[in-house]
Amino acid sequence: MPTYTAPTRDTRFVLNEMLDLASYGNLPGFENATQDMIDTIVNEAGKFCSEVLAPINQSGDEEGCTRHEDGSVTTPKGFKEAYDAYVEAGWATLAKPEEFGGQGLPHTLAMVVEEFTASANQAFGMYPGLTNGASAALEAAGTPEQKEAYLPKMITGEWSGTMNLTEPQCGTDLGLIRTKAEPQADGSYKITGTKIFISAGEHDLTSNIIHLVLAKTPGAPDSSKGISLFIVPKFILDENGEPGTRNGVTCGSIEKKMGIHANSTCVLNYDEATGYMLGEENKGLAAMFVMMNAARLGVGLQGLAQAEVSYQNGVTYALDRRQGRGLAGPAEPEAKADPIFVHPDVRRMLMDAKVFNEGMRALCLWGALQVDLTHEAQTEEERQLADDLIGLMTPVIKGYGTDKGYDIANNMQQVYGGHGYVKEWGMEQFVRDARIAMIYEGTNGVQAMDLCGRKLASKGGRAIQAFFKMIDDEIAEAKTNEALSDLATKLEKALGEQKAATMWFMQNAMANPNHLGAGAHHYMHIMGIVTLGFFWLKQAKTASAALAGNPEDKAFYEAKMTSAAYYAERFLPDAGALRRKLEAGSDNMMALPEEAFSTAA
Amino acid sequence: MPTYTAPTRDTRFVLNEMLDLASYGNLPGFENATQDMIDTIVNEAGKFCSEVLAPINQSGDEEGCTRHEDGSVTTPKGFKEAYDAYVEAGWATLAKPEEFGGQGLPHTLAMVVEEFTASANQAFGMYPGLTNGASAALEAAGTPEQKEAYLPKMITGEWSGTMNLTEPQCGTDLGLIRTKAEPQADGSYKITGTKIFISAGEHDLTSNIIHLVLAKTPGAPDSSKGISLFIVPKFILDENGEPGTRNGVTCGSIEKKMGIHANSTCVLNYDEATGYMLGEENKGLAAMFVMMNAARLGVGLQGLAQAEVSYQNGVTYALDRRQGRGLAGPAEPEAKADPIFVHPDVRRMLMDAKVFNEGMRALCLWGALQVDLTHEAQTEEERQLADDLIGLMTPVIKGYGTDKGYDIANNMQQVYGGHGYVKEWGMEQFVRDARIAMIYEGTNGVQAMDLCGRKLASKGGRAIQAFFKMIDDEIAEAKTNEALSDLATKLEKALGEQKAATMWFMQNAMANPNHLGAGAHHYMHIMGIVTLGFFWLKQAKTASAALAGNPEDKAFYEAKMTSAAYYAERFLPDAGALRRKLEAGSDNMMALPEEAFSTAA
Repeated sequence: MPTYTAPTRDTRFVLNEMLDLASYGNLPGFENATQDMIDTIVNEAGKFCSEVLAPINQSGDEEGCTRHEDGSVTTPKGFKEAYDAYVEAGWATLAKPEEFGGQGLPHTLAMVVEEFTASANQAFGMYPGLTNGASAALEAAGTPEQKEAYLPKMITGEWSGTMNLTEPQCGTDLGLIRTKAEPQADGSYKITGTKIFISAGEHDLTSNIIHLVLAKTPGAPDSSKGISLFIVPKFILDENGEPGTRNGVTCGSIEKKMGIHANSTCVLNYDEATGYMLGEENKGLAAMFVMMNAARLGVGLQGLAQAEVSYQNGVTYALDRRQGRGLAGPAEPEAKADPIFVHPDVRRMLMDAKVFNEGMRALCLWGALQVDLTHEAQTEEERQLADDLIGLMTPVIKGYGTDKGYDIANNMQQVYGGHGYVKEWGMEQFVRDARIAMIYEGTNGVQAMDLCGRKLASKGGRAIQAFFKMIDDEIAEAKTNEALSDLATKLEKALGEQKAATMWFMQNAMANPNHLGAGAHHYMHIMGIVTLGFFWLKQAKTASAALAGNPEDKAFYEAKMTSAAYYAERFLPDAGALRRKLEAGSDNMMALPEEAFSTAA
Repeated sequence: MPTYTAPTRDTRFVLNEMLDLASYGNLPGFENATQDMIDTIVNEAGKFCSEVLAPINQSGDEEGCTRHEDGSVTTPKGFKEAYDAYVEAGWATLAKPEEFGGQGLPHTLAMVVEEFTASANQAFGMYPGLTNGASAALEAAGTPEQKEAYLPKMITGEWSGTMNLTEPQCGTDLGLIRTKAEPQADGSYKITGTKIFISAGEHDLTSNIIHLVLAKTPGAPDSSKGISLFIVPKFILDENGEPGTRNGVTCGSIEKKMGIHANSTCVLNYDEATGYMLGEENKGLAAMFVMMNAARLGVGLQGLAQAEVSYQNGVTYALDRRQGRGLAGPAEPEAKADPIFVHPDVRRMLMDAKVFNEGMRALCLWGALQVDLTHEAQTEEERQLADDLIGLMTPVIKGYGTDKGYDIANNMQQVYGGHGYVKEWGMEQFVRDARIAMIYEGTNGVQAMDLCGRKLASKGGRAIQAFFKMIDDEIAEAKTNEALSDLATKLEKALGEQKAATMWFMQNAMANPNHLGAGAHHYMHIMGIVTLGFFWLKQAKTASAALAGNPEDKAFYEAKMTSAAYYAERFLPDAGALRRKLEAGSDNMMALPEEAFSTAA
């Protein structure tokens, strides 16, 4: 059975050293995030995830969720107990506002717990993950009464939440929604329609489930501008605010999926269910996007999480399994064969995984810090910069992070050879689970269009200019440091490819928007490559400074320097190839008629 | 449910036009392969695969194989009937030698049937596929009596075959084999040991199964030079040559796998089973490699096959599913939304699939022709050239073909959005089934080392020089043709990257063989990219010549020209990036000690 050990050392490096969280101690929420507190949370969360969540990951996949005849759903063996323990330990409330019972710590720390949880058991992590999204939307758009009624119990995890967007005929294009909301005399609505792919839609973990549902009021505009958001609790609250009457929302079936079997992905049937409007009529999409953006960062993190856990097991196997001999001669002549760790092609896959994971972790935690700064930074200018940067980076974290996370999980499965294909070893589950992250919360193609069609041009390109400046500044500084200058030069070249690609879009996309669509996915990858390169430069800067102090765990910092060099030589070159593809435009891509795609005749 | 329609038009284009099979009519076996015969086989095989094999692909995945308490195994519903129909129709005997009951047609035509079969039902195709490998080894290494006893019934498909290499402690490194062969007074052997991952190891499709088993005789050298190959029939033949006494080989269990559920992947326990040596003692590996090389081409073809069937269903969905609007304005203003086919990012994935599939098909069928020419070409020089080329290309077809085939299957799943993740739509099965092809018959890392560590340097680099010359010649000719010169120039650049990478290996790998290992996978991909570029240039040449004749189906040839241009702009650029990675060598890749791969502390 695969195992998981939280990457505590690397996480502490990013938080305490690279990001230097302690230096933000003057900001609200950060005052309690001392290094001691950070270390404790990292270590304890790691322990919890390894010991409680990881052991039920494989059994959860095998058993899956069960829908009973009455429409109720039970989660796999051990999930209820693990969920109670998760709530009991307070992991759900970490970064939630104190006024609703949260601990008020920075979001950055919640991201750490989210990564570890998703590595240990992605299907499990989705239950609290969905609740987070729903509570964020309630916090942002709810009336004081709504917040009071729902938030405290959602924040502790006593109740859970869901997002209901998709319908059979309607995925990305939310203008196609058909679910109806009929206003009632008491100000509530009757919600009727079918929602599909509802993660954590029905289960036995919590005493109530608060569904947030997109629907149309009578006469609403027939487009995405006619969508409203509704709170639809599984149990309507009684006069004491406790779960009362069962509402008209039922699980029609559980989807049979490729992976994340332990999360119940439901078809939810709404049959005149009682709902309450959340936020303004016809402005439901805006409120939903509060959830969506948080959720997209969480999904990007899942890419990292599956890459990390599969990497750990890849390393274990590579050190244990013996086949063949090192190319330069036997590494262990007394044994009948060497560990496959000695083979360069195995090492290539392990190193690719290592540098992706550590670079991605630095990016995700930096991203989480930007979310904190969006709210808590001292000046409007700083808050705006953080908001610009995280808005720009969200599709990259989600899209690039999950594309690459999936690649890594596949490579780690590959390390196992034939055993990687057999369920018992657990590697194929990581691949199946990782696959969904490229799809949900907007496919990675949708992320690419969000990046290129919306974020790049937004506010006159202010965000991308800030991104370029941030990296230019880091490069300029690094070039004056002998230990970093080679890295800086290579990153500058890759950044140059991104700048050229950006310019190409500016010069060509107006005349033909298909040129933008044709290059968007390439651009997202170029930007992901450059961004991780930037975070490797930052990590190398931190490591190089630490090495100057002759630290006790010198090997850790030396490995950072080698890894940074490996990243530069093995990941950055793709930026140039992707730019060439992007500059090919859309002419040949869009030239062929439908009939040309038929292969028979 | 997904569907499959054989790509008959494209196959006929490759066979009749690009390869001009009719021009080989003077060679043995080819005399009957007239264009009429070719067209009939292509069309009938396509029909059979679409109508008989494709409909039981999804149900076969769901049901899987069942092992009963007595060790017997039943295949999923409909498989036995489909197998009987396959045998009845004569698909098994197509390219088999007439002296053993085959039809004696070129191997090239058998490859067509193999592609269609693997697209329609990969798990099914493995049953006759394994028999092919086993009968090829028997043909190459068997005594006249052995051939007489086993070949006729294996060739018709009345009996099937297997390859038994892997053991729990022994995968790639066959020197670690422990299965023992004790010589008996009558010249036979008693085989004892455990083999794992034996595809088609036990089933109910045939009345006998002829296992070919690697084992060690007493006192054999303790390395891969001490391995012999044995024929171990499930039922020992009686005096009439019919299945008689049940032999001591039993299925201990069926592996639970990620995919290809309808193929029974068995643990086979040999308990003093009666076996007969095939070929010379201690030379078992050589005989096994006859099977292996054929099998590797077949596996490369599976990469294409899964890419093709997933592509077809991707196209269907993209034309059917409506979400959003074209970037340049509504394509179908009267409808509520446009088909997702209008979105450039969807088209990018479809075009990537189309040009990979058509390029790969041209490569595979050309490769099959080389196999034919190895035996049948008129001069020793031609036979040797064909042998050099197919030996060189086998790891590329297997390694690059299955890596990319898997990518394509994943992209086609992506086209489906959330529905791609749900079993009912069938796309996730294509991904799960395609995944094995990167692993079995030698992982793609092993293929890369076969290419770079063995094939490149073999006979003073004769094969790679012949490969370069073949492409150089085609480029030189194309440069004189206005319709092809741009394509030729781009291919020349990519080929230049491969030549430079080859040179880099020559200059660096002697000093440090790890440099070779570190770049082998990159090299295999560079060569795959260049090779498909070469076949796109050849297809464009053929199409451009056809267009000059103002043919009836002009659109088909025009699509070839556009596709060739798309391939050049979207696939070739990666060759340069891969070369840069390769030239980074192994220093950073191999620098870190074991401890540095631990993520906790």
